[in-house]
Amino acid sequence: MDFRFLKDLVVPAQTKIVLIVMDGLGGLPIEAGGKTELESAQKPNLDALAAQSALGLADPVAPGITPGSGPGHLGIFGYDPLRYEIGRGVLEALGIDFDLGPDDVAARGNFCSVDANGNLTDRRAGRIATELNVELVNLLRTIKLDGVQVFVETVKDYRFVLVLREDGLGDALSETDPQRIGVPPLPVRALNPDSERSARLVNQFVEQARKLLADRQPANMIMLRGFAKRPAIPSYAQAFGLRAAAIAVYPMYRGLARLLGMQIVNVVGETIADEFTALEQGWSDFDFFYLHVKKTDSAGEDGDFARKAHVIEELDAQLPRLMTLKPDVVIVGGDHSTPALLKSHSWHPVPVLVYSQYVRADGIAEYGERACARGSLGCLPAKDLMPIALANAQRLTKFGA
Amino acid sequence: MDFRFLKDLVVPAQTKIVLIVMDGLGGLPIEAGGKTELESAQKPNLDALAAQSALGLADPVAPGITPGSGPGHLGIFGYDPLRYEIGRGVLEALGIDFDLGPDDVAARGNFCSVDANGNLTDRRAGRIATELNVELVNLLRTIKLDGVQVFVETVKDYRFVLVLREDGLGDALSETDPQRIGVPPLPVRALNPDSERSARLVNQFVEQARKLLADRQPANMIMLRGFAKRPAIPSYAQAFGLRAAAIAVYPMYRGLARLLGMQIVNVVGETIADEFTALEQGWSDFDFFYLHVKKTDSAGEDGDFARKAHVIEELDAQLPRLMTLKPDVVIVGGDHSTPALLKSHSWHPVPVLVYSQYVRADGIAEYGERACARGSLGCLPAKDLMPIALANAQRLTKFGA
Repeated sequence: MDFRFLKDLVVPAQTKIVLIVMDGLGGLPIEAGGKTELESAQKPNLDALAAQSALGLADPVAPGITPGSGPGHLGIFGYDPLRYEIGRGVLEALGIDFDLGPDDVAARGNFCSVDANGNLTDRRAGRIATELNVELVNLLRTIKLDGVQVFVETVKDYRFVLVLREDGLGDALSETDPQRIGVPPLPVRALNPDSERSARLVNQFVEQARKLLADRQPANMIMLRGFAKRPAIPSYAQAFGLRAAAIAVYPMYRGLARLLGMQIVNVVGETIADEFTALEQGWSDFDFFYLHVKKTDSAGEDGDFARKAHVIEELDAQLPRLMTLKPDVVIVGGDHSTPALLKSHSWHPVPVLVYSQYVRADGIAEYGERACARGSLGCLPAKDLMPIALANAQRLTKFGA
Repeated sequence: MDFRFLKDLVVPAQTKIVLIVMDGLGGLPIEAGGKTELESAQKPNLDALAAQSALGLADPVAPGITPGSGPGHLGIFGYDPLRYEIGRGVLEALGIDFDLGPDDVAARGNFCSVDANGNLTDRRAGRIATELNVELVNLLRTIKLDGVQVFVETVKDYRFVLVLREDGLGDALSETDPQRIGVPPLPVRALNPDSERSARLVNQFVEQARKLLADRQPANMIMLRGFAKRPAIPSYAQAFGLRAAAIAVYPMYRGLARLLGMQIVNVVGETIADEFTALEQGWSDFDFFYLHVKKTDSAGEDGDFARKAHVIEELDAQLPRLMTLKPDVVIVGGDHSTPALLKSHSWHPVPVLVYSQYVRADGIAEYGERACARGSLGCLPAKDLMPIALANAQRLTKFGA
C-alpha cells in the first residue's frame, strides 16, 4: 500500500483504534502435536473477543523472514519494513530514550580489548559492568570534534551509543568491527561522497578515544557499527490521519513510536495493569493507541513456555478494562514470533484478531495459532492490518468512482 | 500479474469462460453472529456449484480499501486498479453509453446556482428536473469552440457530461467546483503543459455557458470536475487472447466492458432471465462472457437485506441455463461488497467461486462469505482470478522450461 494513495482516502472520524502488540507472541508446541504458548493459556476474554473478530496470521516482513524488533513493529504499525529501514544505531539510541534529531548520525558502540600492537583480544572487553561503562563514557564525553555536537551515552555492560549532530551529515559509513580477534579495528570509510565528513569526524573520535582509554584495560579501545540516521518515514498523522498514543514500558518501543510521531503516554509502574491504567487515562485525547506488552518476548527468549503463557493470561485479565471503553476497532497481535522452543525470534507468522462492529466475524471462539490459520484474513502481510483497521473505524473513503 | 508476461503464455483454445459479477455481492449480518445476505439466500444451484469449485475471498483493490464501481470491476476483470485509473468524467460518459474516443477529454458537469456577484448559492441548482436539464443542455450545445468538437449530454437531474474531442488534448485539469458555497466557481488550471490548450478551451466554454444561462435561475451556472481521458489499458484480446462479450443492463457496466474491448451483447428486457437469454444467444460467438447483475448492489445501497438476498435467489434460479451450455470455467463473484447494514460500498472482501473440470474443488457445498473464507483460494487479490480462469480454461502454456 502506497501512503500517497492511502492518504488521499483518509477522512476524519471520532472513532478509536487500539493496537495491542504482545511482543514475540507467536509460538510453537514443545512437543509435536502439542499446544503453543498462546493455545495453552487460559484466556477467556481473548477467546470471547476472537468470536466477534476476523482472524488471521500476519507475516511481519515476508514469509520465512525472522524480523528484529524494528522491522517487526514497522510491519504491524502499517509500514513496509523492506522500504523503511531503521538502522542499528538509531534503534540503540531509541532504546535509551535518546531524542534523535532528523540529521543525527547514531552508532552502536562497544568497548573492546586490544593488545600492545592494537590487535583485538576481546570484542566485548570482558563484558565490563555498567558502572565502569558510565565512568568510561564520561571520559569519552571530553572529546571535542570540530563544529559538531557529540553525544556519548551508556547503554548497558560494554555497549554505548555515539551520536554526531550537524546539519547534512551523511550516514553511509563502514563499520570498525572486523568481527574477529587478532586484527586491529578497521578505520571508518565513507560509502558515498556525502558521508566523507562524517567518516573524518568518526575516525578523529576513535583516535582520541584510543588515547583516552590506553591504560583502561580491558576496555582500552572502542568499536562502532550500525551508523544510521532516522529514516524519512511518514508519521501516523501524515499516513493515517491519526492522533496516536504509545503505551510502552520499555524505552525502545517508545522510541519506535516517537519515530512515527506517536505521543508517549506516561505509565506509572511497569505491569500490564499499569499500562491499561495509562490507556484509560489517555482515552479521550487520542484516536489510536499502541499498547506494548514486552514480557511475552522475554519469556520466549528465556525458553520459558509456562511464563510466556502466563503473561498472555495477565493481558487477558486486563482486557475487560479496554472493552469497557467501547473501542471501535481492536487489533490484538504481535511484532513477531518468539517460540520458547527456539529461545529466539522466529519467522512464524503471528496470530492476529481484528475486532469491530463492522468486521465480518469468523465465529471462531478461540485466539490461537491454529484458530487464526482458519480465519478469513488468511495469511496476510502485517502492514495490511492498518488499512483494515482504518476501514473498520470508518476513516477511509471510497477509492474511485 | 504483468500483462506482457501473461501475454507470452496465452495459447489459443476452444474453451469458454463465464464471469458472473453480482454487483456489491459481499455482505454483513444485520445482527452479530447472524447470516449475511448471501448466506441467508436459498440458492441450491450456487451451493451445488460451490461443491465442485475452489472458493475464496477476493480483495477488489487492496485490504481495507472500499472500491468505487470502476476500480471494483477492473479488479475482477483481471487488472490492477491501482495501476489503471478510470477518471470520474470517463465513468460518467460511460454511464450514458457515450462512445468515448481515445483522445476525448470528458468531465462531469453540474448545473449550479450563483448570486448577482457570481458566488455559489447552491452547488446542485436545487436539484432541477431532468427535463429542464435536457433543455439547458440544448442551450449549451450551441457553444462553439475553436477547432474542437464539443459534446454536451444530459445525465440526470442537475448532472451532465462535457466531452471535448481533438487529437492531443491533455486532461490534467483542476476542477471548477470549490466544494462550498459563498464563493465563485474556480477557473480551470492546466496541471501540466500538455493540458494548457484544454484549460483555455474549457474556460471559454464555461464563460459562454455563464452568458447563456444568466437568466435561467436556479440553474444559472455550471461547474466541471473529474476531467479525464480513457486510460491506456490493454484489451481483453491483447491481455488474455479472448474474444470477450459483455451482458449488462446498466450502461456504465457496458461502458467499462467496452473500454476493455469487450463486445456488447444486446439484452432484450431488463431481468436476470433476459441476461441469460442474451448469454444463450451469444454463446457460440465468444470465448469469454461477463454477465453483470446490478440489483444486488441497489438493494444493498437501499439497506434492503431481504431484497438483496432475493436478487441472489433470482440469479440462482437461472444458473442451470448456464450449466446446460457446458461452460469450461465459471467464476461467480462481485466487484465489491455492499452490505445492507452499511447501505454503501464497503471494504470487505467478496466471496468468489471458480468452477471448472480441472479446479481442485474444496468440497464445500455452500457459497457464502464464511464458507468462502475456508476455501483453498484463500483471501486473494481479485486481479489474480483471471489468470486462474485462463489456466483452468487451458489457455495458458507453461512458464519456463
